[in-house]
Amino acid sequence: MYMLQVGINGYGTIGKRVADAVRAQPDMEVVGVAKTRPNFEAEGAVENGYPLYAAIEERAGRFDDAGIELAGMVEELVEAADVIVDACPSGIGADNKSLYDEYDTPALYQGGEDASVADTSFNARANYDEAVGAQHVRVVSCNTTGLSRLVAPLREEYGVEKVRATLVRRGGDPAQTGRGPINDIVPNPVSLPSHHGPDVKTIFPDLAIDTLGLKVPATLMHMHSINVSLEAEPDAEEVRELLERQSRIFVIPEHMDIDGAGKLKEFAMDRGRPRGDFWENCVWGESVSMEGNDLYLFQAIHQESDVVPENVDAIRAVTNAADAEESIETTNDALGIGF
Amino acid sequence: MYMLQVGINGYGTIGKRVADAVRAQPDMEVVGVAKTRPNFEAEGAVENGYPLYAAIEERAGRFDDAGIELAGMVEELVEAADVIVDACPSGIGADNKSLYDEYDTPALYQGGEDASVADTSFNARANYDEAVGAQHVRVVSCNTTGLSRLVAPLREEYGVEKVRATLVRRGGDPAQTGRGPINDIVPNPVSLPSHHGPDVKTIFPDLAIDTLGLKVPATLMHMHSINVSLEAEPDAEEVRELLERQSRIFVIPEHMDIDGAGKLKEFAMDRGRPRGDFWENCVWGESVSMEGNDLYLFQAIHQESDVVPENVDAIRAVTNAADAEESIETTNDALGIGF
Amino acid sequence: MYMLQVGINGYGTIGKRVADAVRAQPDMEVVGVAKTRPNFEAEGAVENGYPLYAAIEERAGRFDDAGIELAGMVEELVEAADVIVDACPSGIGADNKSLYDEYDTPALYQGGEDASVADTSFNARANYDEAVGAQHVRVVSCNTTGLSRLVAPLREEYGVEKVRATLVRRGGDPAQTGRGPINDIVPNPVSLPSHHGPDVKTIFPDLAIDTLGLKVPATLMHMHSINVSLEAEPDAEEVRELLERQSRIFVIPEHMDIDGAGKLKEFAMDRGRPRGDFWENCVWGESVSMEGNDLYLFQAIHQESDVVPENVDAIRAVTNAADAEESIETTNDALGIGF
Amino acid sequence: MYMLQVGINGYGTIGKRVADAVRAQPDMEVVGVAKTRPNFEAEGAVENGYPLYAAIEERAGRFDDAGIELAGMVEELVEAADVIVDACPSGIGADNKSLYDEYDTPALYQGGEDASVADTSFNARANYDEAVGAQHVRVVSCNTTGLSRLVAPLREEYGVEKVRATLVRRGGDPAQTGRGPINDIVPNPVSLPSHHGPDVKTIFPDLAIDTLGLKVPATLMHMHSINVSLEAEPDAEEVRELLERQSRIFVIPEHMDIDGAGKLKEFAMDRGRPRGDFWENCVWGESVSMEGNDLYLFQAIHQESDVVPENVDAIRAVTNAADAEESIETTNDALGIGF
Ligand SMILES: NC(=O)c1ccc[n+]([C@@H]2O[C@H](COP(=O)([O-])OP(=O)(O)OC[C@H]3O[C@@H](n4cnc5c(N)ncnc54)[C@H](O)[C@@H]3O)[C@@H](O)[C@H]2O)c1
Ligand SMILES: NC(=O)c1ccc[n+]([C@@H]2O[C@H](COP(=O)([O-])OP(=O)(O)OC[C@H]3O[C@@H](n4cnc5c(N)ncnc54)[C@H](O)[C@@H]3O)[C@@H](O)[C@H]2O)c1
Ligand SMILES: NC(=O)c1ccc[n+]([C@@H]2O[C@H](COP(=O)([O-])OP(=O)(O)OC[C@H]3O[C@@H](n4cnc5c(N)ncnc54)[C@H](O)[C@@H]3O)[C@@H](O)[C@H]2O)c1
Ligand SMILES: NC(=O)c1ccc[n+]([C@@H]2O[C@H](COP(=O)([O-])OP(=O)(O)OC[C@H]3O[C@@H](n4cnc5c(N)ncnc54)[C@H](O)[C@@H]3O)[C@@H](O)[C@H]2O)c1
Repeated sequence: MYMLQVGINGYGTIGKRVADAVRAQPDMEVVGVAKTRPNFEAEGAVENGYPLYAAIEERAGRFDDAGIELAGMVEELVEAADVIVDACPSGIGADNKSLYDEYDTPALYQGGEDASVADTSFNARANYDEAVGAQHVRVVSCNTTGLSRLVAPLREEYGVEKVRATLVRRGGDPAQTGRGPINDIVPNPVSLPSHHGPDVKTIFPDLAIDTLGLKVPATLMHMHSINVSLEAEPDAEEVRELLERQSRIFVIPEHMDIDGAGKLKEFAMDRGRPRGDFWENCVWGESVSMEGNDLYLFQAIHQESDVVPENVDAIRAVTNAADAEESIETTNDALGIGF
Repeated sequence: MYMLQVGINGYGTIGKRVADAVRAQPDMEVVGVAKTRPNFEAEGAVENGYPLYAAIEERAGRFDDAGIELAGMVEELVEAADVIVDACPSGIGADNKSLYDEYDTPALYQGGEDASVADTSFNARANYDEAVGAQHVRVVSCNTTGLSRLVAPLREEYGVEKVRATLVRRGGDPAQTGRGPINDIVPNPVSLPSHHGPDVKTIFPDLAIDTLGLKVPATLMHMHSINVSLEAEPDAEEVRELLERQSRIFVIPEHMDIDGAGKLKEFAMDRGRPRGDFWENCVWGESVSMEGNDLYLFQAIHQESDVVPENVDAIRAVTNAADAEESIETTNDALGIGF
Repeated sequence: MYMLQVGINGYGTIGKRVADAVRAQPDMEVVGVAKTRPNFEAEGAVENGYPLYAAIEERAGRFDDAGIELAGMVEELVEAADVIVDACPSGIGADNKSLYDEYDTPALYQGGEDASVADTSFNARANYDEAVGAQHVRVVSCNTTGLSRLVAPLREEYGVEKVRATLVRRGGDPAQTGRGPINDIVPNPVSLPSHHGPDVKTIFPDLAIDTLGLKVPATLMHMHSINVSLEAEPDAEEVRELLERQSRIFVIPEHMDIDGAGKLKEFAMDRGRPRGDFWENCVWGESVSMEGNDLYLFQAIHQESDVVPENVDAIRAVTNAADAEESIETTNDALGIGF
Repeated sequence: MYMLQVGINGYGTIGKRVADAVRAQPDMEVVGVAKTRPNFEAEGAVENGYPLYAAIEERAGRFDDAGIELAGMVEELVEAADVIVDACPSGIGADNKSLYDEYDTPALYQGGEDASVADTSFNARANYDEAVGAQHVRVVSCNTTGLSRLVAPLREEYGVEKVRATLVRRGGDPAQTGRGPINDIVPNPVSLPSHHGPDVKTIFPDLAIDTLGLKVPATLMHMHSINVSLEAEPDAEEVRELLERQSRIFVIPEHMDIDGAGKLKEFAMDRGRPRGDFWENCVWGESVSMEGNDLYLFQAIHQESDVVPENVDAIRAVTNAADAEESIETTNDALGIGF
């Protein structure tokens, strides 16, 4: 079987997870990863056997100084790859676009980029087909991914009148010591509704959705406080079962006695998840409730990893290597999604 | 002019603030405060000239040991007072009720008590008259006070179809070192809708309101992410002006460049507010927005002090010392409410 | 080869890690684990194939209710085991002692117990031999383990005049949502020197050591700010090399660009460590410095896991299954200690 | 009596406090304050009646836009002032030096500047006289001020062999939402000893002092874990009494039951301190202890305000308006230092 050659440009929080997820697939392999500077993650790439490319020619010497062997420059990686996953910091992806075009390599971008960078925004559950054969595809952000996975089945099953969501966002990832706030709850953005709603509309253009965003001093996961006014009035139990049937939604059972993101991550680590990752939305089963046609629930979203299986699927979409159902199933099986 | 004699049982976060607010009024004075044990707050009571009573007879000796002079036992305070403000920890208020009945002293309770402890729950802006002449009145919690102040004018002006509010609550007050979470976002309670909605209905029995509560690692203020489906479609500017006219709502102007609770408290302290207190709801002006008939906004609620002016008004209500308008104005003037 | 039958009483933060570490050894196996109540950790025990015993007879029914199958009562586990590792909450270990005596099963206790619970306190590097053949052994706390590993080689190589250490302790483990402080730095205990110094003396009775303890709003690792007045004046490079030679000390190289516990844990997870655990002390290489005979350095201690290899070695000590060197090497190899 | 005309360039955390402290003095007044941009603090300056000057000519228009009236440009302020207190962000003070020289106005700088910016570094208790008549004086940082106040009496009374201090620093001030860490303990700087020791030597050039610095997710106060090897062996009680006699050291009595910075600030606010400020070092009485000639103690340092009385004294020093004793007493009386 031909193995898709995947290059990853930007080997940080997202990039390193995508690399490991790609390697776990039966139909792809990591042709190499690119980074700008040496640190423990660069060393980790080498340790893991990923050929490491320098993203910035002038700084390539720094890897030498740190005793890290390079496989070449990023251009070579782009040339060698069937698909490039760009996982550079927000905004850099757009800068890199011309490089990918130069070598005619299809590219995936992350949610930190503007939607306009790509031909289409992507969520496997909701709009896989739109990315089939596309040259530039943006895998939407962690929050938008989490919202899309929730909205998709609700729309199909009941119809959605309106979504109202408050996104209580972690201030920074666990390793980002420079980010705050330390002791505050910060409306962000202050002006409403927030830009998160329009981002969800890149997946569901005709969805009515208003979002509000806040930042708090926590690092583990985002928390979504969700209201969906449905076009029907199912009972809560039925909705819960619908969500339980979604492969990338984990409905937390009451008896697990999990009260927040700390215990959730502990659970993931106990189950041997790499890096304690949650590729799934985590919905508190107990929270799923209906008041009239208003659905309410809480879901925790692991910002560092929920987009990872989406990137894998998007690779298959742009290369036309599988249809949605087949790709999702392959990805899930290879990673071990679901508990 | 006769000065109402007010006793305060429980001299902690709320009690000490109510004492200072009572003292600032032209028509009341603090006849004494009661506490269970000596600490810096007990010393502060004496320092401030409030006669200090022991709440628990067997522990009265501890005050002696700490060199703090007592004025007597709490029973004497209850007897001497025209009104007692009970500001004991949640649940203790209910235990104290029989003591107040014994001396036939009208009593106010705080929001940590069950609504059933009192004849009526109280918010000055919304239902002052219901407390007039009552024997047992509960001043609702900081969150319910904040929601009531917001809902009252919206109902009067536009009618309210439904309120949906996510309460992002501080984990503990600034001095409570024993409370968490440290690095988590905790759905609390997990089952929805939360008990906060029904509590608001003790003020507006026929209001449609669903609430969701979360706890986060912050100590300064609660933050409310608010949606109100109105029965009209005013523009945002009009709603903002309506809120600006409310004496206990502070609409934060954009040009102040205040991004969260930290800068808000800094502002309050710069303006000389005692303890940096915010007796007002703090609504971000920039956040007030309308989508169809859906109003959205963020408000910060200073848990330690927003109920303070409400307690003062409730004292006048139960003693029939003034009507709502007069009491609110007197309280506001005496404290210096508004910026 | 005979496999030592190890029972674990208390399957929480420490217990579950010890179970996994025991299973990884070539000469031991987990005969079962005991817990008081069902939750995700209890389910995890079953998932991992550890026979689960109920610690409290009256509550055994709760496991049934949660659909978790029990292997029996804790007494049966104690009887079946060659050694019991007690990993119950502080103080419960002492209560359990008579149970272990009843079945004449040698027992290990954790650092939350008083030293007096055991015949000897234990650190593999420092005093393995004292535990050989003992019936009751206490594996010292995470902080004491971290200090002992550091002191042992310094004493041997240079002699130690005095240790002065400030322990900046995490407020709670990542999953403990009920613990604070949220925004404070709390001297704990306030009276000095702290009890941590005397605890280190249970390992080195004649060591001169003064410690100070603080609690801060962080969950990942403790941080030790260390001063050791040596009896010699080696240069910093030499000390650093000495530490690098210790198998359970990881000296963080500068080029890894690791600035705190967040990046450290990230590094551990990138390297595939189960639960992101650090069984080693983590000393910042750059921090190791000498001023006259005063050594200074920072070390981070992973409270949840540094005692795990020590428990494994203590099992071999009490059963006289290996000498110190052999045990440490076996443990290290089986776990993959060192980077 | 002639009132010293004091100008303040930089009206932020430090500047606004110095302004209020200057105004409270019997022998000085605030001739004006300068700021670069409008926000709530600029509005507060006007509200407080301080003439407001624009620090950057091109941006002066922004104040107009925000409806804030300007008194002029910073050059006019410098010209009008007898002394300028520069309280601009770190590094800007040095840039401003030529401006002060141009108008021959003596200037004070803050601890964020390099020592080389000034003729002398300053701490009122330790080296007032060195600043008498100087043109450029640097008031040392909050941490150095806190250490100097402690070291001065110990040196005088017992002689100091060596100081070893671990500075557990707050990550940011309460209003600085952009600063972290959120959930980490960060050695900062990593290389030892830290630069804080040499900074203390700008006050005591021949002092033996080694310091270690850490940053934690707290905003209220710094915490110092202190060891001083004395040249004598007084008992702890005697040292405590010595510290109690220092006017700018507050020894926290046990019976106040204050466990950390949260309760400390609460106490300050209860006592009516403006902004809850602590101009004094706060030493836990219970922590003061002696082991041989080793003194140990914990002190909390309010980063935002401990340098404020020092600035006031430095104004008198550079203008030769009073000697040390007289100035300190006047400052203390005017502010109400001591409890
Ligand atoms: N971290 C999250 O929680 C998260 C979640 C979803 C989406 N995203 C998005 O994913 C993208 C990557 O974010 P991240 O958190 O992984 O960032 P990161 O900072 O952890 O990693 C970025 C990596 O890119 C490298 N890099 C920087 N400039 C580069 C260049 N010019 N060429 C190649 N490599 C370069 C860096 O060295 C680093 O290894 C962003 O668009 C972000 O918005 C992040
Ligand atoms: N702190 C808040 O943010 C807040 C906000 C709104 C309402 N409330 C409510 O106000 C009430 C008081 O809360 P708080 O935060 O002020 O508590 P607190 O713990 O700060 O103060 C309670 C005081 O009561 C004293 N006390 C305890 N038992 C007593 C007894 N039997 N008799 C007399 N005094 C006794 C304590 O010594 C303490 O001084 C609670 O119902 C609480 O739910 C608190
Ligand atoms: N967590 C740490 O960071 C840490 C570090 C070093 C040492 N320790 C010590 O290890 C011991 C265990 O701490 P932990 O953090 O693992 O606690 P934990 O609360 O995470 O786990 C304790 C476990 O014991 C079970 N348990 C409670 N009562 C029991 C009983 N009577 N019989 C059997 N099981 C019972 C609980 O259900 C839980 O599973 C304590 O002595 C602690 O001081 C903890
Ligand atoms: N905040 C503390 O905890 C603290 C403690 C002790 C010493 N310091 C030192 O005090 C100084 C000021 O720190 P801060 O915390 O008050 O800072 P800040 O940011 O709170 O205030 C600085 C002020 O200076 C103004 N400003 C910026 N550039 C200016 C310019 N070119 N001209 C005039 N004004 C300008 C800003 O608008 C702001 O009002 C720094 O050197 C700092 O290191 C700060």
